[in-house]
Amino acid sequence: MNKKIITISREFGSGGRTVGKQLADKLGVPCFDHELILKLVEKSGLSEEYIKEESEYAHGGFLTAMLSSREMGLTNQDILWTAQRNIILEIAEKESCVIVGRCADFILRDKEKTFNVFIHASMEKRAERIVQQYGEREESPVQRLKEKDKRRAAYYRFYTDTKWGVAQNYHVALDSGALGIQYCVELLADMVEEFYKRI
Amino acid sequence: MNKKIITISREFGSGGRTVGKQLADKLGVPCFDHELILKLVEKSGLSEEYIKEESEYAHGGFLTAMLSSREMGLTNQDILWTAQRNIILEIAEKESCVIVGRCADFILRDKEKTFNVFIHASMEKRAERIVQQYGEREESPVQRLKEKDKRRAAYYRFYTDTKWGVAQNYHVALDSGALGIQYCVELLADMVEEFYKRI
Repeated sequence: MNKKIITISREFGSGGRTVGKQLADKLGVPCFDHELILKLVEKSGLSEEYIKEESEYAHGGFLTAMLSSREMGLTNQDILWTAQRNIILEIAEKESCVIVGRCADFILRDKEKTFNVFIHASMEKRAERIVQQYGEREESPVQRLKEKDKRRAAYYRFYTDTKWGVAQNYHVALDSGALGIQYCVELLADMVEEFYKRI
Repeated sequence: MNKKIITISREFGSGGRTVGKQLADKLGVPCFDHELILKLVEKSGLSEEYIKEESEYAHGGFLTAMLSSREMGLTNQDILWTAQRNIILEIAEKESCVIVGRCADFILRDKEKTFNVFIHASMEKRAERIVQQYGEREESPVQRLKEKDKRRAAYYRFYTDTKWGVAQNYHVALDSGALGIQYCVELLADMVEEFYKRI
């Protein structure tokens, strides 16, 4: 049987992580997300809290720090990127799996035949979802989403030098708000079979 | 029964037009593409050949002509855009259909509950396909594709003020090269049913 590596990129609040977990269950393969963070902690020696904050978002000072700090060598974020990259390469070499986020599509592009998915949803549907999942905050949900989108796009752009969310970079992009998470999982399971049958 | 309007945007050479026609057949609804061009001819009084050339691509002088010519009033391309827009609105008001290209997703955005699809494929697969379909030419197929992509993106950007090929603008984006045209048609027929069931 072919090894199947599915990478899922997603907008914050689109339910992409849930899609990834349910898809992995359906395919009977592991899903790497929290687990990945924990492995990262062990390898990098950085605190778990720091990693959660830094691992996928360009933080507040990220853009300003970008030029100056590298003259002094690698930033903590660069060290984390490398640790993360190595773990993703290791996991993907070993077995079939779903990897959510963390630029895995880019990291594995010349190494493995991955099936690359992008999950998004309208601002309205995502706002509903994050209020349900994470509760109300001081800033509006739309403000939180815009901020997260901007950071995620900046992080992706910086480390991959390609644009996040461009349809051509994925085998499939789905609007989980319009189609429903459960249905997206069913579609994807079917598509994964078809994709690996054809290669 | 809900009226179903499916818009298909596509990269040149991706087989998006074939997907549109086969999907329309499967759903038992009309597909507008050549037919639309012919209707345009009648309404606008412009020659069919001119329309084929101008209707969807920013032509050679398009960008330079953009600023200067509008000081003198509408360009032929603007007149065509308006005629095209009116016909799309008319068609979509009347009946379920598939509309391929022509910025229909944008034109109908506030009028109809459309299901918006984007079809793309790798440069390699598209090059294979256009050589098969349109034969060899003097310039390389990759060169032809790059030129077409650029024009299509410029046209879309100019008339819609949004970017072409951004995943978030479509309910689904599919790589027809990796998944196969026939399979894309089957997927889409199923998704259309689900989408209209949910609204």
